[in-house]
Amino acid sequence: MMLATLRNGRPDGRLVVVSSDHRRCQPAPVDTLQAALDDWDAHSPALLAIAAALADGGGAPFDPTEASAPLPRAWQWLDGSAFPSHGALMDRAFNKPPIETTLPLMYQGMSHQFLGPHDEVPLPSEAHGIDFEGEFGVITGAVPMGITAADAMQHIRLIVQINDWSLRTLALPEMKTGFGWIHGKPACSMAPVAITPDTLGDAWQDGRVCLPLEVHWNDTPFGRPNGREMAYGFHDLIAHAARTRSLPAGTIIGSGTVSNDDHAAVGSTCIAERRGIEIIEQGAPVTQYMRFGDTLRMEARSEAGAPLFGRIEQRVTATPGRPD
Amino acid sequence: MMLATLRNGRPDGRLVVVSSDHRRCQPAPVDTLQAALDDWDAHSPALLAIAAALADGGGAPFDPTEASAPLPRAWQWLDGSAFPSHGALMDRAFNKPPIETTLPLMYQGMSHQFLGPHDEVPLPSEAHGIDFEGEFGVITGAVPMGITAADAMQHIRLIVQINDWSLRTLALPEMKTGFGWIHGKPACSMAPVAITPDTLGDAWQDGRVCLPLEVHWNDTPFGRPNGREMAYGFHDLIAHAARTRSLPAGTIIGSGTVSNDDHAAVGSTCIAERRGIEIIEQGAPVTQYMRFGDTLRMEARSEAGAPLFGRIEQRVTATPGRPD
Repeated sequence: MMLATLRNGRPDGRLVVVSSDHRRCQPAPVDTLQAALDDWDAHSPALLAIAAALADGGGAPFDPTEASAPLPRAWQWLDGSAFPSHGALMDRAFNKPPIETTLPLMYQGMSHQFLGPHDEVPLPSEAHGIDFEGEFGVITGAVPMGITAADAMQHIRLIVQINDWSLRTLALPEMKTGFGWIHGKPACSMAPVAITPDTLGDAWQDGRVCLPLEVHWNDTPFGRPNGREMAYGFHDLIAHAARTRSLPAGTIIGSGTVSNDDHAAVGSTCIAERRGIEIIEQGAPVTQYMRFGDTLRMEARSEAGAPLFGRIEQRVTATPGRPD
Repeated sequence: MMLATLRNGRPDGRLVVVSSDHRRCQPAPVDTLQAALDDWDAHSPALLAIAAALADGGGAPFDPTEASAPLPRAWQWLDGSAFPSHGALMDRAFNKPPIETTLPLMYQGMSHQFLGPHDEVPLPSEAHGIDFEGEFGVITGAVPMGITAADAMQHIRLIVQINDWSLRTLALPEMKTGFGWIHGKPACSMAPVAITPDTLGDAWQDGRVCLPLEVHWNDTPFGRPNGREMAYGFHDLIAHAARTRSLPAGTIIGSGTVSNDDHAAVGSTCIAERRGIEIIEQGAPVTQYMRFGDTLRMEARSEAGAPLFGRIEQRVTATPGRPD
């Protein structure tokens, strides 16, 4: 099943069920994705029935440029950093010692605003080191405190694709305080379609999205690493998140930047990682961060080439107001 | 004006206006505090009119044990650490170098659940170093990205009193990752009554609550430091928070643990700080963290002894499920 949210002038938009080819959609019997998640068992049969009917035709045209993020705002956004190759390269990029921990890495990010897949991205300054991070994510149902990883799997309702916008020159000093990120992590963006795990078929394995995430920066291919190399599955990340808190329905858990060991073959999904590779291979970073006006495209399709999450396609712009 | 939220079986409860002696209340013409904050200019005249009428009598009895947190859930909770004396003592308590930054310290905490002032506090293990942190906080209206501190002052809608529950043995290794806290910062609690800044009179100065916050642990006085010693006012913290993001109405900004230089006279509002003092004065920490069954009380009253935020009065309990 595939779900999207169309803008209707309200903060949470209007939930629609999307056909598997992303060409058609039909309004859901429940107004918003948050409302569906709040009582998933009650709402999902009707949503599935609409999805089945859409497979036989009908519905209205689905225009992803009218879509907001599937969850335009969420009560909680917890982003992991579950790809070991990314961490190693970031340490090199920023010339810092490896992070010492035996647990998954995770921070709490701003969740009151997820940009839509075609929204402009307003940011205050090019000097902040504007970067993208291509990620997969899951949206959970309500999860009790103390859940095990095995039990957490059943609470994964939907899978999404996220761009975790990052401001590198602000993020590094924030990280050194130990407090995580406020300035370095502005609003993320989300691809237009959220899908149930079964939609992925064999590409959903052990809580991982085993598909390449293709990134283009200014229409130039930048990377296509595969989501399978997570050190922890999403169920592990949920159990980690819920150790001392319960999670509300609609919690979004991110994978962290998708990254593979064989980066020479597949490239990266963020600039900072490429800069780390350049430092290793050439002694210094060469690639600069984004400029206002730059565009960014991300998409993960099925092995057969079918659409799944749809496409993030955005332009970075200068925000009005204080430049720095 | 004083506002509170009574439980009604719904997640956001029922907004009431509270009399200045906390004895009576009357339902607000808008259902929830979040709804009032979403359109404050439209709703505040009617709220003020009810407050004025309550001053002349009327209304129903106000029972703070029926109250949830004024905002039982919020889109964003950003907690500062604005008392320099606290930071210095924590560095001593945990034997770590001072944090190097010229900016306010701030982390994003879980905001989907604020415990009510009399709720039990379920936590998984006494081994986690259960601690309280007495704080003041503000609730903002919508704040645009890039706002100045001077302009931020006008966006402070309400002032609240918070207990930022902390799990010290989990928090320190998380801090070392640079990612901030997931395990170390479970749900916070809030005193029952949120007040407009004018309610504080002369005790509201330069964005600071210039009143002592009295803390009792198991009915024994623990500390009563004054909120005036913040290195940054709440307007500064809002501007810091909004540097690369806009803030939604209902954002809660915390002061960090209230702490004074003259801790010998006024004590502390968290155990970790007392342990830091013990290390300095006695060479080793003496005070142990909280045990299940322990109680905690916090209250800040006006200089004349009148109630303001009401009282947090809670007991720590073992959560069902995974102990560790």
